[in-house]
Amino acid sequence: MSTVYDVTTWTVPGNPAVTCYTDVGAVINSIIADIKANQPNQWSKPGAVIYLPPGDYPLRTRVTIDVSYLTIKGSGHGFTSSSIRYNSGDTSSWWEIWPGGSRIRVENTDGRAEAFRVARAGNPRLSSVVFENFCLDGVSFTGNQNSYRNGRVGILVDTANDAFRIERMGFVYLERALVVRDADALSVSGNFIAECGNCVELIGSGQASKVTDNLIGAGYVGRSVFAEGHEGLLVTANNIFPRGASLIHLKNTNRSSISANRLHGFYPGMIVFEGLNKENLVSGNHLRREAEPWGPMQPYGNGRDDLFGVIQIRGDNNFVTGNMIAWYVDPTKIRPVGATPTMVLVASGTGNVVATNHMVTNVAAKHVVLDATTVGTRVLDSGTAAQFQAYTTNHAFRATP
Amino acid sequence: MSTVYDVTTWTVPGNPAVTCYTDVGAVINSIIADIKANQPNQWSKPGAVIYLPPGDYPLRTRVTIDVSYLTIKGSGHGFTSSSIRYNSGDTSSWWEIWPGGSRIRVENTDGRAEAFRVARAGNPRLSSVVFENFCLDGVSFTGNQNSYRNGRVGILVDTANDAFRIERMGFVYLERALVVRDADALSVSGNFIAECGNCVELIGSGQASKVTDNLIGAGYVGRSVFAEGHEGLLVTANNIFPRGASLIHLKNTNRSSISANRLHGFYPGMIVFEGLNKENLVSGNHLRREAEPWGPMQPYGNGRDDLFGVIQIRGDNNFVTGNMIAWYVDPTKIRPVGATPTMVLVASGTGNVVATNHMVTNVAAKHVVLDATTVGTRVLDSGTAAQFQAYTTNHAFRATP
Amino acid sequence: MSTVYDVTTWTVPGNPAVTCYTDVGAVINSIIADIKANQPNQWSKPGAVIYLPPGDYPLRTRVTIDVSYLTIKGSGHGFTSSSIRYNSGDTSSWWEIWPGGSRIRVENTDGRAEAFRVARAGNPRLSSVVFENFCLDGVSFTGNQNSYRNGRVGILVDTANDAFRIERMGFVYLERALVVRDADALSVSGNFIAECGNCVELIGSGQASKVTDNLIGAGYVGRSVFAEGHEGLLVTANNIFPRGASLIHLKNTNRSSISANRLHGFYPGMIVFEGLNKENLVSGNHLRREAEPWGPMQPYGNGRDDLFGVIQIRGDNNFVTGNMIAWYVDPTKIRPVGATPTMVLVASGTGNVVATNHMVTNVAAKHVVLDATTVGTRVLDSGTAAQFQAYTTNHAFRATP
Repeated sequence: MSTVYDVTTWTVPGNPAVTCYTDVGAVINSIIADIKANQPNQWSKPGAVIYLPPGDYPLRTRVTIDVSYLTIKGSGHGFTSSSIRYNSGDTSSWWEIWPGGSRIRVENTDGRAEAFRVARAGNPRLSSVVFENFCLDGVSFTGNQNSYRNGRVGILVDTANDAFRIERMGFVYLERALVVRDADALSVSGNFIAECGNCVELIGSGQASKVTDNLIGAGYVGRSVFAEGHEGLLVTANNIFPRGASLIHLKNTNRSSISANRLHGFYPGMIVFEGLNKENLVSGNHLRREAEPWGPMQPYGNGRDDLFGVIQIRGDNNFVTGNMIAWYVDPTKIRPVGATPTMVLVASGTGNVVATNHMVTNVAAKHVVLDATTVGTRVLDSGTAAQFQAYTTNHAFRATP
Repeated sequence: MSTVYDVTTWTVPGNPAVTCYTDVGAVINSIIADIKANQPNQWSKPGAVIYLPPGDYPLRTRVTIDVSYLTIKGSGHGFTSSSIRYNSGDTSSWWEIWPGGSRIRVENTDGRAEAFRVARAGNPRLSSVVFENFCLDGVSFTGNQNSYRNGRVGILVDTANDAFRIERMGFVYLERALVVRDADALSVSGNFIAECGNCVELIGSGQASKVTDNLIGAGYVGRSVFAEGHEGLLVTANNIFPRGASLIHLKNTNRSSISANRLHGFYPGMIVFEGLNKENLVSGNHLRREAEPWGPMQPYGNGRDDLFGVIQIRGDNNFVTGNMIAWYVDPTKIRPVGATPTMVLVASGTGNVVATNHMVTNVAAKHVVLDATTVGTRVLDSGTAAQFQAYTTNHAFRATP
Repeated sequence: MSTVYDVTTWTVPGNPAVTCYTDVGAVINSIIADIKANQPNQWSKPGAVIYLPPGDYPLRTRVTIDVSYLTIKGSGHGFTSSSIRYNSGDTSSWWEIWPGGSRIRVENTDGRAEAFRVARAGNPRLSSVVFENFCLDGVSFTGNQNSYRNGRVGILVDTANDAFRIERMGFVYLERALVVRDADALSVSGNFIAECGNCVELIGSGQASKVTDNLIGAGYVGRSVFAEGHEGLLVTANNIFPRGASLIHLKNTNRSSISANRLHGFYPGMIVFEGLNKENLVSGNHLRREAEPWGPMQPYGNGRDDLFGVIQIRGDNNFVTGNMIAWYVDPTKIRPVGATPTMVLVASGTGNVVATNHMVTNVAAKHVVLDATTVGTRVLDSGTAAQFQAYTTNHAFRATP
């Protein structure tokens, strides 16, 4: 009994009219049923691999994954910019107009939002499900093609999970690309996730996971990388490009690490801490903030003003060190009008440390601002006295010479 | 003559009763013999790829690899926690109880310890052998399931080698997962190596290698990452979780780099330098030390006390910068009883530098301690005067403001 | 119509005498023609995957790629050191003498320099072409085997491109391994690129790209990693070994990041900025500079002297922090004779910052030197006053205590 399946050669028992070219979701569900039928024994359930050769596959029925050790794999994330295409006018002479590779068009007609939902009750948690090297394309947004809204979700992992891998995938034009609840030792690596409302959302809780070596860029409505209730998350070696209402957004997340990433944003609030976040490390990142240069997207923003901070820290004992912020915004675009923009805002908390960072700005700026509620922040070698503003006396400051 | 082999379709010449379901080791040895028979010419030995589809494969005979350019590849590292399962009592209602994916059960009956041994005498060194995306499962430990002892070794590379890749593999319940002697330009990347006595051991000597982007966690008896006699090793972008007697352990290793990792440990000595180690860089790492929270493992430890240091440096001119240590241990669990715990201990050597680190502790702690034999250590911006202790006057110190 | 091709089973229409064993370039061109014939519709061009099993494949005709979403994939980068072999004398007893894996011998007889040229006029840019896990071997150099010259180019991407991936490849003995013009969101990751004149050249312009997790080492004549006109390039987690006239070379490149790499070089100028480079981050890197130890290569060098700087910065507002330089050169080999070697030279520009770096040298050295034209450089905690030399008074300096 083979454990290697190909969606292009699978026949759905009792329903041969359904193929990967009419509904790849139904085909994959049928294959999963076969896997389960062939692996009834608790003592040997190695799972399987389902292959999607390069091709265009409509998905009308949500796939439900409730087996461990399943790999769904293609040959190509197939990203191309749909945003450029939709904003380009006449494309009749274009070589191609859609994403490609092993491409699933997410076109649910089953009333579901998700292309893939992974969930299982009982014990143990699902382990080692793998999504690898194919394309999930939401095809179009609703209202207008710059709305980043269509209600479509690429992958939702909805119950606690262990050792999952989302690697070398492509996601495009989904309102939510990848949502993982209650992750343990998750790997999100080598993906291309762009032109989605939200890109990576790690919700609920999580621990010991990593988001590494990805190319990511959300729409102006959402987050490129979001983590909630996480402990020990590692976000490193990513190139996160515009737009993203926020680029890396931690909520009630502790002892996690944002290191050696490159971030490029068009709005205030590129790294955002929400709620209570403790003992996180933000080190060695490059942040470029400029104003939106592209006409079609200039009407949009994230609603924050330039006092929000390029980095906004909330919580205790976080450490911001070795980062560079390169800030260039035309003075006429600064909000509030005439304001002195803030690079790092420590908005709440005790014992945060901001040390040895370099900020470059085209207007006079506050490199570090401490809100009145903050306690015991130490700011070292991150700007001159004129570039520092504390609304509390409970702090330590050493100016860059 | 095909260079693509599948263990499920291979027939052992003269011994058709042996299959991948009776002894995958014998099958792979037979395939390697075929590769060698078909590539007798020194001028063209491109090697081959041996594929393990998802499945459970017992290995009774050690595989011996003595050809270059061989890839052994599966479809899934198949990790699940055997430790949780073994400590869970009744698992009769569980969906599955074993690891899966392309899973080799290491059950040698040939008197050998290793599932795979890679070795060759003569010239040149073996090059570009690849282990990729399958599972090596030691199945059970000896004595009790929390002993981390069973004498089993996943992969032993036993002679000098060049450009090997261990990538996207899973290792579980082996006493020693991966052991590589005399590595040059080795890549250990994208793996899941957990619940093994030792995870990655780079022994003998080595140069220009990398351990990147892995999820790793050894048992309390061993090391998560160990390197001996190495030069120019790069350990970055790893999430190393408990337990591990030590998490990153360098012995007589020089000019190597431990950067942008996330480390979580339950005992003193998370980063350990043994012997004489020169000019290494430890930068941008997040270290979380807490006490073992899980009942079944609370009887165990690594035998070190809290004066050992979360990081212990031995050797000359090492540079520890931009790291965060988040330390929380119930005071009743501190050893020696009543001791002031040490975060960074410079235990020997000349000219080490500890600069711009942030330590957060739930009790008064010494952030940096210099032993009496140390010479010329410089400690900058890593704590207050009260948080610093030098048993020598031969040092420089600048307190965090 | 399958989108999965295998070069070993493809028959060239009308020319069955041509096979992958006579000219793999002609075979791949024929396959690409088939892909184009079968995907004429602008609305569905998912591309294909072309597989190279392990084997030796001569390439006599340049491959021209002008379709998006094409993956060319092998099973093994197959690196071995040809340099050691060519410098070893009698190799008649060697097990093997050539690289292997899925190996293309670049032996163009068509008058072209490149094995692969990727280019297309019109719209959109080519997207998501993938080169993965095979070997491009230039076989031999011209004149002598240590010349690093043979005019051969592995891959030239010659028109603007988006979301390309060069991953897990091997390149050896090419004058230029990988050349990409006008890259957007390029991923160069997991490759082994060594013993080539130049390894990675990102020419023209580019943005939001990454060079991550590679093993790279150019010849003494060229660059290991070169980027020109780039914005937002991320170079991280690479182990870059000798030789390389320069190891990371930026030209007119802004807001890019060189972080957490390990670099080993034999000549001055390991990280080089040429032209005008703004707001780049160089953080957390380990740099080892020593003299060439290997006899066959000792006659060669890059022509620079030890006043050039191990790191030479040109441009404005760059930030060099958290790096370690371990420098050991026999005093008799220092040039100019008797000179005090320079570790970091700020050669031009305004507002550069060099903070919290650690340099270790076997002779008295200048850790940071500021040229006379520089303005407003700040140098903090990177050496003593005696280790600092400024040919301008327009700077700030704080000595390491």
